[in-house]
Amino acid sequence: MENLLKENERIDDLEYKGLKIIQNENGFCFGIDAVILSDFAKNLKNGAKILDLGTGTAILPILLSKKTENTKIIGVEIQEDVANMAKRSVKLNNLEDKIEILNENILNLTNILKIGEFDAIVTNPPYKKKNTGIINDKEAKIISRHEITAELKDFIKVSSKLLKFGGEFFMVHRPERLSEIISLLKEYNLEPKILRFVYPKIDKPSNMILIKAVKGGKEFLKVEKPLIVYDENQNYTNEILKIYNKI
Amino acid sequence: MENLLKENERIDDLEYKGLKIIQNENGFCFGIDAVILSDFAKNLKNGAKILDLGTGTAILPILLSKKTENTKIIGVEIQEDVANMAKRSVKLNNLEDKIEILNENILNLTNILKIGEFDAIVTNPPYKKKNTGIINDKEAKIISRHEITAELKDFIKVSSKLLKFGGEFFMVHRPERLSEIISLLKEYNLEPKILRFVYPKIDKPSNMILIKAVKGGKEFLKVEKPLIVYDENQNYTNEILKIYNKI
Repeated sequence: MENLLKENERIDDLEYKGLKIIQNENGFCFGIDAVILSDFAKNLKNGAKILDLGTGTAILPILLSKKTENTKIIGVEIQEDVANMAKRSVKLNNLEDKIEILNENILNLTNILKIGEFDAIVTNPPYKKKNTGIINDKEAKIISRHEITAELKDFIKVSSKLLKFGGEFFMVHRPERLSEIISLLKEYNLEPKILRFVYPKIDKPSNMILIKAVKGGKEFLKVEKPLIVYDENQNYTNEILKIYNKI
Repeated sequence: MENLLKENERIDDLEYKGLKIIQNENGFCFGIDAVILSDFAKNLKNGAKILDLGTGTAILPILLSKKTENTKIIGVEIQEDVANMAKRSVKLNNLEDKIEILNENILNLTNILKIGEFDAIVTNPPYKKKNTGIINDKEAKIISRHEITAELKDFIKVSSKLLKFGGEFFMVHRPERLSEIISLLKEYNLEPKILRFVYPKIDKPSNMILIKAVKGGKEFLKVEKPLIVYDENQNYTNEILKIYNKI
Protein backbone atom coordinates (compact mmCIF):
# COMPACT_ATOMS: atom_id res chain seq x y z
CA MET A 1 0.00 0.00 0.00
CA GLU A 2 1.26 3.46 -0.86
CA ASN A 3 1.89 5.95 1.89
CA LEU A 4 -1.24 7.36 3.47
CA LEU A 5 -0.13 10.99 3.22
CA LYS A 6 1.75 12.82 0.48
CA GLU A 7 3.53 16.15 0.69
CA ASN A 8 1.47 19.00 2.15
CA GLU A 9 -1.37 16.66 3.10
CA ARG A 10 -2.89 16.31 6.55
CA ILE A 11 -5.64 14.27 8.16
CA ASP A 12 -8.61 16.24 9.53
CA ASP A 13 -11.07 14.80 12.02
CA LEU A 14 -14.64 15.39 10.76
CA GLU A 15 -15.91 15.04 14.35
CA TYR A 16 -18.81 13.00 12.98
CA LYS A 17 -19.15 9.29 13.70
CA GLY A 18 -15.38 8.86 13.76
CA LEU A 19 -14.88 10.03 10.16
CA LYS A 20 -11.61 11.53 8.97
CA ILE A 21 -10.51 13.16 5.73
CA ILE A 22 -7.22 13.83 4.00
CA GLN A 23 -6.77 17.35 2.63
CA ASN A 24 -3.95 19.14 0.87
CA GLU A 25 -3.00 22.36 2.57
CA ASN A 26 -2.33 24.03 -0.77
CA GLY A 27 -5.40 22.61 -2.47
CA PHE A 28 -9.12 23.19 -2.22
CA CYS A 29 -10.34 22.33 1.29
CA PHE A 30 -14.01 21.55 1.80
CA GLY A 31 -16.23 24.23 3.27
CA ILE A 32 -19.58 24.62 4.98
CA ASP A 33 -21.18 24.22 1.52
CA ALA A 34 -20.44 20.50 1.37
CA VAL A 35 -21.51 19.96 4.97
CA ILE A 36 -24.91 21.62 4.56
CA LEU A 37 -25.43 19.89 1.22
CA SER A 38 -24.85 16.51 2.89
CA ASP A 39 -27.48 17.47 5.45
CA PHE A 40 -29.91 18.69 2.77
CA ALA A 41 -29.57 15.41 0.85
CA LYS A 42 -29.57 13.05 3.83
CA ASN A 43 -33.09 11.64 3.51
CA LEU A 44 -32.18 9.33 0.66
CA LYS A 45 -33.88 5.95 0.63
CA ASN A 46 -32.30 2.79 1.92
CA GLY A 47 -30.06 1.24 -0.73
CA ALA A 48 -29.99 4.26 -3.04
CA LYS A 49 -27.35 4.44 -5.76
CA ILE A 50 -25.75 7.87 -5.46
CA LEU A 51 -23.36 9.79 -7.69
CA ASP A 52 -21.28 12.80 -6.62
CA LEU A 53 -20.10 14.96 -9.51
CA GLY A 54 -16.84 16.76 -8.75
CA THR A 55 -16.21 15.00 -5.46
CA GLY A 56 -12.90 16.67 -4.62
CA THR A 57 -11.68 15.27 -1.30
CA ALA A 58 -14.73 12.92 -1.29
CA ILE A 59 -16.23 14.92 1.55
CA LEU A 60 -19.80 14.37 0.29
CA PRO A 61 -19.56 10.57 -0.17
CA ILE A 62 -17.81 10.21 3.18
CA LEU A 63 -20.44 12.22 5.08
CA LEU A 64 -23.36 10.69 3.14
CA SER A 65 -22.08 7.17 3.82
CA LYS A 66 -22.95 7.70 7.50
CA LYS A 67 -26.14 9.71 6.92
CA THR A 68 -27.81 7.14 4.65
CA GLU A 69 -28.46 3.39 4.88
CA ASN A 70 -26.96 0.76 2.57
CA THR A 71 -26.22 3.26 -0.14
CA LYS A 72 -23.56 2.88 -2.83
CA ILE A 73 -21.84 6.12 -3.71
CA ILE A 74 -19.62 6.92 -6.69
CA GLY A 75 -17.56 10.09 -6.45
CA VAL A 76 -16.17 11.48 -9.71
CA GLU A 77 -13.11 13.72 -9.72
CA ILE A 78 -11.22 14.95 -12.78
CA GLN A 79 -7.94 15.84 -11.04
CA GLU A 80 -5.77 12.75 -10.72
CA ASP A 81 -3.93 13.73 -7.56
CA VAL A 82 -7.16 14.88 -5.88
CA ALA A 83 -8.93 11.63 -6.88
CA ASN A 84 -5.98 9.68 -5.52
CA MET A 85 -6.18 11.56 -2.22
CA ALA A 86 -9.95 10.93 -2.09
CA LYS A 87 -9.34 7.18 -2.58
CA ARG A 88 -6.94 7.20 0.34
CA SER A 89 -9.55 8.96 2.49
CA VAL A 90 -12.09 6.28 1.60
CA LYS A 91 -9.61 3.59 2.64
CA LEU A 92 -8.71 5.47 5.82
CA ASN A 93 -12.38 5.31 6.84
CA ASN A 94 -12.80 1.67 5.74
CA LEU A 95 -15.53 2.71 3.34
CA GLU A 96 -14.31 0.86 0.23
CA ASP A 97 -17.48 -1.28 0.17
CA LYS A 98 -19.70 1.81 0.06
CA ILE A 99 -17.71 4.41 -1.88
CA GLU A 100 -15.94 4.22 -5.21
CA ILE A 101 -13.82 7.08 -6.57
CA LEU A 102 -13.63 7.51 -10.34
CA ASN A 103 -10.89 9.69 -11.82
CA GLU A 104 -12.83 10.99 -14.80
CA ASN A 105 -14.09 14.08 -16.55
CA ILE A 106 -17.84 14.21 -15.93
CA LEU A 107 -18.29 14.74 -19.69
CA ASN A 108 -17.26 11.11 -20.25
CA LEU A 109 -19.63 9.60 -17.70
CA THR A 110 -22.48 8.84 -20.07
CA ASN A 111 -20.12 6.45 -21.89
CA ILE A 112 -18.92 4.78 -18.68
CA LEU A 113 -21.97 4.59 -16.42
CA LYS A 114 -25.44 3.29 -17.19
CA ILE A 115 -28.01 5.84 -18.38
CA GLY A 116 -30.87 6.16 -15.86
CA GLU A 117 -28.96 4.16 -13.26
CA PHE A 118 -28.89 6.54 -10.28
CA ASP A 119 -31.46 7.29 -7.58
CA ALA A 120 -29.71 10.49 -6.61
CA ILE A 121 -26.96 12.82 -7.75
CA VAL A 122 -25.28 15.31 -5.45
CA THR A 123 -22.94 18.04 -6.55
CA ASN A 124 -21.01 21.01 -5.20
CA PRO A 125 -19.75 22.22 -8.58
CA PRO A 126 -17.40 25.13 -9.34
CA TYR A 127 -19.43 28.28 -8.70
CA LYS A 128 -17.77 30.77 -10.98
CA LYS A 129 -17.87 31.13 -14.71
CA LYS A 130 -14.64 30.93 -16.62
CA ASN A 131 -12.97 34.36 -16.75
CA THR A 132 -14.90 35.86 -13.83
CA GLY A 133 -13.79 36.85 -10.37
CA ILE A 134 -10.36 36.45 -8.89
CA ILE A 135 -8.59 33.46 -10.38
CA ASN A 136 -6.63 31.53 -7.80
CA ASP A 137 -3.22 30.69 -9.13
CA LYS A 138 -3.06 27.09 -8.00
CA GLU A 139 -4.47 24.92 -10.75
CA ALA A 140 -6.31 22.61 -8.34
CA LYS A 141 -8.16 25.56 -6.86
CA ILE A 142 -8.99 26.97 -10.29
CA ILE A 143 -10.67 23.75 -11.39
CA SER A 144 -12.53 23.43 -8.10
CA ARG A 145 -13.83 27.00 -8.13
CA HIS A 146 -14.12 27.95 -11.80
CA GLU A 147 -15.86 26.25 -14.68
CA ILE A 148 -12.69 25.32 -16.52
CA THR A 149 -13.24 21.67 -17.36
CA ALA A 150 -17.04 21.52 -17.16
CA GLU A 151 -19.78 24.12 -16.93
CA LEU A 152 -22.99 24.24 -14.94
CA LYS A 153 -24.82 23.11 -18.05
CA ASP A 154 -22.64 20.00 -18.27
CA PHE A 155 -23.26 19.06 -14.64
CA ILE A 156 -27.00 19.35 -15.19
CA LYS A 157 -27.06 17.62 -18.58
CA VAL A 158 -25.01 14.66 -17.35
CA SER A 159 -27.16 14.41 -14.21
CA SER A 160 -30.35 14.35 -16.22
CA LYS A 161 -29.03 11.44 -18.32
CA LEU A 162 -27.71 9.36 -15.43
CA LEU A 163 -30.69 9.81 -13.08
CA LYS A 164 -33.62 7.43 -13.27
CA PHE A 165 -37.10 8.89 -13.81
CA GLY A 166 -38.13 10.34 -10.45
CA GLY A 167 -34.48 10.43 -9.37
CA GLU A 168 -33.29 13.31 -7.20
CA PHE A 169 -30.69 15.96 -7.94
CA PHE A 170 -29.16 17.93 -5.06
CA MET A 171 -26.87 20.89 -5.59
CA VAL A 172 -25.34 23.71 -3.60
CA HIS A 173 -24.57 26.87 -5.56
CA ARG A 174 -24.62 30.65 -5.44
CA PRO A 175 -27.79 32.78 -5.55
CA GLU A 176 -26.45 35.03 -8.30
CA ARG A 177 -26.77 32.10 -10.70
CA LEU A 178 -30.24 30.99 -9.63
CA SER A 179 -32.09 32.00 -12.79
CA GLU A 180 -29.55 30.24 -14.98
CA ILE A 181 -29.75 27.15 -12.72
CA ILE A 182 -33.54 27.04 -12.88
CA SER A 183 -33.61 27.53 -16.66
CA LEU A 184 -31.06 24.78 -17.22
CA LEU A 185 -32.75 22.34 -14.84
CA LYS A 186 -36.07 22.82 -16.63
CA GLU A 187 -34.38 22.51 -20.02
CA TYR A 188 -33.05 19.09 -18.98
CA ASN A 189 -36.28 17.87 -17.40
CA LEU A 190 -35.07 18.22 -13.82
CA GLU A 191 -37.92 20.06 -12.13
CA PRO A 192 -36.90 22.26 -9.18
CA LYS A 193 -38.91 21.05 -6.15
CA ILE A 194 -37.15 22.43 -3.06
CA LEU A 195 -35.06 25.54 -2.63
CA ARG A 196 -33.40 26.62 0.56
CA PHE A 197 -31.60 29.91 0.91
CA VAL A 198 -28.62 30.19 3.21
CA TYR A 199 -28.10 33.62 4.77
CA PRO A 200 -24.84 34.33 6.65
CA LYS A 201 -26.90 36.41 9.11
CA ILE A 202 -30.59 37.23 9.37
CA ASP A 203 -30.00 40.72 7.99
CA LYS A 204 -27.64 39.82 5.15
CA PRO A 205 -28.29 38.79 1.54
CA SER A 206 -28.17 35.09 0.79
CA ASN A 207 -24.74 33.75 -0.22
CA MET A 208 -25.62 30.12 -0.88
CA ILE A 209 -28.54 28.11 -2.17
CA LEU A 210 -29.53 24.49 -1.81
CA ILE A 211 -31.66 23.10 -4.57
CA LYS A 212 -33.42 19.77 -5.02
CA ALA A 213 -34.84 18.87 -8.42
CA VAL A 214 -36.66 15.72 -9.53
CA LYS A 215 -36.31 14.17 -12.96
CA GLY A 216 -39.71 14.41 -14.63
CA GLY A 217 -41.26 16.06 -11.56
CA LYS A 218 -44.37 18.27 -11.62
CA GLU A 219 -44.01 22.05 -11.48
CA PHE A 220 -44.39 23.06 -7.81
CA LEU A 221 -41.60 24.58 -5.78
CA LYS A 222 -41.25 24.75 -2.01
CA VAL A 223 -38.97 27.41 -0.53
CA GLU A 224 -37.99 26.06 2.87
CA LYS A 225 -37.39 28.10 6.01
CA PRO A 226 -34.23 30.20 5.81
CA LEU A 227 -30.96 28.66 6.95
CA ILE A 228 -29.16 31.30 9.00
CA VAL A 229 -25.49 30.58 9.69
CA TYR A 230 -24.47 33.04 12.41
CA ASP A 231 -26.49 34.69 15.18
CA GLU A 232 -26.10 38.32 16.24
CA ASN A 233 -23.06 37.39 18.40
CA GLN A 234 -21.22 35.81 15.43
CA ASN A 235 -21.81 32.33 16.86
CA TYR A 236 -23.18 29.47 14.80
CA THR A 237 -26.96 29.18 15.09
CA ASN A 238 -28.41 26.03 16.66
CA GLU A 239 -29.31 24.60 13.28
CA ILE A 240 -25.72 24.88 12.04
CA LEU A 241 -24.42 23.39 15.31
CA LYS A 242 -26.82 20.46 14.80
CA ILE A 243 -25.65 19.97 11.22
CA TYR A 244 -22.06 19.91 12.51
CA ASN A 245 -23.16 17.42 15.17
CA LYS A 246 -22.10 19.75 17.98
CA ILE A 247 -25.41 19.70 19.86
CA MET B 1 -70.52 63.59 -9.47
CA GLU B 2 -71.78 60.13 -8.68
CA ASN B 3 -72.06 58.98 -5.08
CA LEU B 4 -68.74 58.25 -3.43
CA LEU B 5 -69.80 54.88 -2.06
CA LYS B 6 -71.94 52.12 -3.59
CA GLU B 7 -73.61 49.23 -1.84
CA ASN B 8 -71.32 47.18 0.43
CA GLU B 9 -68.47 49.63 0.02
CA ARG B 10 -66.56 51.30 2.82
CA ILE B 11 -63.68 53.76 3.15
CA ASP B 12 -60.54 52.44 4.85
CA ASP B 13 -57.85 54.70 6.24
CA LEU B 14 -54.44 53.56 4.95
CA GLU B 15 -52.77 55.32 7.91
CA TYR B 16 -50.10 56.54 5.53
CA LYS B 17 -49.76 60.23 4.61
CA GLY B 18 -53.52 60.70 4.92
CA LEU B 19 -54.38 58.20 2.19
CA LYS B 20 -57.73 56.44 2.09
CA ILE B 21 -59.14 53.66 -0.06
CA ILE B 22 -62.59 52.41 -1.00
CA GLN B 23 -63.12 48.67 -0.74
CA ASN B 24 -66.09 46.39 -1.29
CA GLU B 25 -66.77 44.18 1.68
CA ASN B 26 -67.78 41.30 -0.60
CA GLY B 27 -64.95 41.82 -3.06
CA PHE B 28 -61.22 41.29 -3.01
CA CYS B 29 -59.62 43.49 -0.35
CA PHE B 30 -55.91 44.31 -0.60
CA GLY B 31 -53.49 42.40 1.59
CA ILE B 32 -49.97 42.66 2.92
CA ASP B 33 -48.76 41.56 -0.55
CA ALA B 34 -49.60 44.90 -2.13
CA VAL B 35 -48.15 46.86 0.77
CA ILE B 36 -44.79 45.09 0.71
CA LEU B 37 -44.68 45.29 -3.09
CA SER B 38 -45.15 49.07 -2.89
CA ASP B 39 -42.23 49.18 -0.48
CA PHE B 40 -40.09 46.90 -2.67
CA ALA B 41 -40.72 49.13 -5.71
CA LYS B 42 -40.43 52.49 -3.99
CA ASN B 43 -36.99 53.54 -5.24
CA LEU B 44 -38.27 54.53 -8.66
CA LYS B 45 -36.67 57.53 -10.26
CA ASN B 46 -38.18 60.99 -10.20
CA GLY B 47 -40.73 61.38 -12.98
CA ALA B 48 -40.99 57.68 -13.84
CA LYS B 49 -43.91 56.46 -15.94
CA ILE B 50 -45.39 53.51 -14.08
CA LEU B 51 -47.98 50.91 -15.05
CA ASP B 52 -49.84 48.65 -12.60
CA LEU B 53 -51.29 45.53 -14.21
CA GLY B 54 -54.41 44.29 -12.42
CA THR B 55 -54.69 47.26 -10.10
CA GLY B 56 -57.87 46.17 -8.28
CA THR B 57 -58.72 48.83 -5.70
CA ALA B 58 -55.75 50.88 -7.00
CA ILE B 59 -53.90 50.20 -3.79
CA LEU B 60 -50.51 50.09 -5.54
CA PRO B 61 -50.88 53.37 -7.49
CA ILE B 62 -52.24 55.11 -4.41
CA LEU B 63 -49.37 53.98 -2.16
CA LEU B 64 -46.73 54.53 -4.87
CA SER B 65 -48.00 58.05 -5.56
CA LYS B 66 -46.72 59.02 -2.11
CA LYS B 67 -43.57 56.90 -2.14
CA THR B 68 -42.23 58.26 -5.43
CA GLU B 69 -41.65 61.76 -6.83
CA ASN B 70 -43.44 63.25 -9.84
CA THR B 71 -44.44 59.88 -11.20
CA LYS B 72 -47.39 59.19 -13.48
CA ILE B 73 -49.12 55.92 -12.77
CA ILE B 74 -51.65 54.05 -14.90
CA GLY B 75 -53.60 51.30 -13.14
CA VAL B 76 -55.31 48.74 -15.37
CA GLU B 77 -58.30 46.76 -14.13
CA ILE B 78 -60.51 44.46 -16.19
CA GLN B 79 -63.54 44.42 -13.88
CA GLU B 80 -65.74 47.43 -14.61
CA ASP B 81 -67.19 47.88 -11.12
CA VAL B 82 -63.76 47.45 -9.50
CA ALA B 83 -62.18 49.92 -11.94
CA ASN B 84 -65.01 52.35 -11.16
CA MET B 85 -64.39 51.97 -7.44
CA ALA B 86 -60.64 52.50 -8.00
CA LYS B 87 -61.39 55.74 -9.91
CA ARG B 88 -63.45 56.98 -6.98
CA SER B 89 -60.56 56.18 -4.61
CA VAL B 90 -58.19 58.20 -6.79
CA LYS B 91 -60.61 61.13 -6.69
CA LEU B 92 -61.10 60.75 -2.92
CA ASN B 93 -57.33 61.22 -2.48
CA ASN B 94 -57.13 64.07 -5.01
CA LEU B 95 -54.66 62.08 -7.07
CA GLU B 96 -56.29 62.53 -10.51
CA ASP B 97 -53.20 64.35 -11.78
CA LYS B 98 -50.92 61.45 -10.87
CA ILE B 99 -53.06 58.35 -11.35
CA GLU B 100 -55.19 57.21 -14.25
CA ILE B 101 -57.38 54.09 -14.06
CA LEU B 102 -57.99 52.16 -17.27
CA ASN B 103 -60.84 49.65 -17.42
CA GLU B 104 -59.21 47.18 -19.81
CA ASN B 105 -58.09 43.63 -20.25
CA ILE B 106 -54.30 43.64 -20.08
CA LEU B 107 -54.27 41.62 -23.31
CA ASN B 108 -55.45 44.73 -25.19
CA LEU B 109 -52.85 47.09 -23.77
CA THR B 110 -50.30 46.74 -26.55
CA ASN B 111 -52.92 48.24 -28.90
CA ILE B 112 -53.76 51.10 -26.55
CA LEU B 113 -50.49 52.13 -24.92
CA LYS B 114 -47.16 52.92 -26.54
CA ILE B 115 -44.66 50.04 -26.87
CA GLY B 116 -41.55 50.68 -24.78
CA GLU B 117 -43.16 53.63 -23.02
CA PHE B 118 -42.85 52.69 -19.36
CA ASP B 119 -39.98 53.02 -16.90
CA ALA B 120 -41.53 50.55 -14.50
CA ILE B 121 -44.34 48.03 -14.28
CA VAL B 122 -45.68 46.72 -10.98
CA THR B 123 -48.07 43.85 -10.60
CA ASN B 124 -49.76 41.76 -7.95
CA PRO B 125 -51.37 39.30 -10.36
CA PRO B 126 -53.72 36.39 -9.60
CA TYR B 127 -51.57 33.72 -7.96
CA LYS B 128 -53.44 30.57 -8.81
CA LYS B 129 -53.78 28.71 -12.07
CA LYS B 130 -57.21 28.22 -13.52
CA ASN B 131 -58.83 25.09 -12.07
CA THR B 132 -56.55 24.84 -9.04
CA GLY B 133 -57.25 25.38 -5.36
CA ILE B 134 -60.50 26.44 -3.79
CA ILE B 135 -62.51 28.59 -6.16
CA ASN B 136 -64.16 31.47 -4.39
CA ASP B 137 -67.74 31.80 -5.54
CA LYS B 138 -67.82 35.55 -5.97
CA GLU B 139 -66.78 36.37 -9.51
CA ALA B 140 -64.73 39.38 -8.51
CA LYS B 141 -62.66 37.28 -6.16
CA ILE B 142 -62.18 34.56 -8.78
CA ILE B 143 -60.71 37.00 -11.27
CA SER B 144 -58.51 38.58 -8.64
CA ARG B 145 -57.14 35.27 -7.34
CA HIS B 146 -57.21 32.90 -10.33
CA GLU B 147 -55.85 33.23 -13.81
CA ILE B 148 -59.22 33.42 -15.50
CA THR B 149 -58.86 36.39 -17.83
CA ALA B 150 -55.07 36.50 -18.12
CA GLU B 151 -52.26 34.15 -17.16
CA LEU B 152 -48.84 34.77 -15.67
CA LYS B 153 -47.39 34.47 -19.15
CA ASP B 154 -49.66 37.29 -20.38
CA PHE B 155 -48.66 39.61 -17.54
CA ILE B 156 -44.99 39.02 -18.35
CA LYS B 157 -45.36 39.22 -22.13
CA VAL B 158 -47.31 42.47 -22.00
CA SER B 159 -44.83 43.93 -19.51
CA SER B 160 -41.91 43.09 -21.72
CA LYS B 161 -43.52 44.91 -24.65
CA LEU B 162 -44.54 48.02 -22.73
CA LEU B 163 -41.31 48.51 -20.77
CA LYS B 164 -38.47 50.52 -22.24
CA PHE B 165 -35.05 48.89 -22.53
CA GLY B 166 -33.62 48.89 -19.01
CA GLY B 167 -37.12 49.35 -17.59
CA GLU B 168 -37.97 47.65 -14.30
CA PHE B 169 -40.58 44.99 -13.59
CA PHE B 170 -41.73 44.42 -10.00
CA MET B 171 -43.99 41.55 -9.01
CA VAL B 172 -45.22 39.83 -5.87
CA HIS B 173 -46.13 36.17 -6.28
CA ARG B 174 -45.97 32.75 -4.62
CA PRO B 175 -42.78 30.71 -4.23
CA GLU B 176 -44.35 27.55 -5.64
CA ARG B 177 -44.39 29.23 -9.04
CA LEU B 178 -40.87 30.62 -8.93
CA SER B 179 -39.36 28.34 -11.58
CA GLU B 180 -42.17 29.13 -13.98
CA ILE B 181 -41.79 32.85 -13.24
CA ILE B 182 -38.04 32.80 -13.86
CA SER B 183 -38.40 30.80 -17.09
CA LEU B 184 -41.05 33.14 -18.42
CA LEU B 185 -39.18 36.30 -17.46
CA LYS B 186 -36.07 35.05 -19.26
CA GLU B 187 -38.14 33.98 -22.26
CA TYR B 188 -39.42 37.55 -22.57
CA ASN B 189 -36.05 39.24 -22.02
CA LEU B 190 -36.83 40.41 -18.49
CA GLU B 191 -33.77 39.35 -16.52
CA PRO B 192 -34.40 38.59 -12.83
CA LYS B 193 -32.09 40.87 -10.82
CA ILE B 194 -33.45 40.91 -7.26
CA LEU B 195 -35.41 38.31 -5.35
CA ARG B 196 -36.67 38.68 -1.84
CA PHE B 197 -38.33 35.86 0.03
CA VAL B 198 -41.04 36.61 2.57
CA TYR B 199 -41.29 34.13 5.44
CA PRO B 200 -44.30 34.34 7.80
CA LYS B 201 -41.93 33.41 10.64
CA ILE B 202 -38.22 32.67 10.80
CA ASP B 203 -38.86 28.92 11.05
CA LYS B 204 -41.56 28.65 8.37
CA PRO B 205 -41.34 28.09 4.60
CA SER B 206 -41.64 31.17 2.42
CA ASN B 207 -45.17 32.06 1.34
CA MET B 208 -44.48 35.09 -0.83
CA ILE B 209 -41.76 36.32 -3.16
CA LEU B 210 -40.83 39.74 -4.41
CA ILE B 211 -39.07 39.84 -7.73
CA LYS B 212 -37.46 42.63 -9.70
CA ALA B 213 -36.45 42.04 -13.31
CA VAL B 214 -34.85 44.40 -15.81
CA LYS B 215 -35.60 44.42 -19.51
CA GLY B 216 -32.40 43.43 -21.30
CA GLY B 217 -30.48 43.13 -18.01
CA LYS B 218 -27.37 41.04 -17.52
CA GLU B 219 -27.62 37.66 -15.78
CA PHE B 220 -26.79 38.23 -12.09
CA LEU B 221 -29.31 37.74 -9.33
CA LYS B 222 -29.22 39.14 -5.81
CA VAL B 223 -31.25 37.37 -3.13
CA GLU B 224 -31.86 40.02 -0.49
CA LYS B 225 -32.05 39.45 3.25
CA PRO B 226 -35.16 37.53 4.30
CA LEU B 227 -38.32 39.49 5.06
CA ILE B 228 -39.80 37.95 8.21
CA VAL B 229 -43.39 39.00 8.95
CA TYR B 230 -44.04 37.87 12.54
CA ASP B 231 -41.68 37.47 15.48
CA GLU B 232 -41.88 34.59 17.99
CA ASN B 233 -44.68 36.39 19.88
CA GLN B 234 -46.87 36.68 16.77
CA ASN B 235 -46.22 40.41 16.56
CA TYR B 236 -45.14 42.14 13.39
CA THR B 237 -41.36 42.45 13.10
CA ASN B 238 -39.81 45.91 13.08
CA GLU B 239 -39.32 45.83 9.34
CA ILE B 240 -43.02 45.15 8.73
CA LEU B 241 -43.99 47.87 11.22
CA LYS B 242 -41.75 50.27 9.30
CA ILE B 243 -43.32 49.30 5.99
CA TYR B 244 -46.74 49.96 7.54
CA ASN B 245 -45.42 53.29 8.80
CA LYS B 246 -46.10 52.34 12.43
CA ILE B 247 -42.61 53.06 13.71
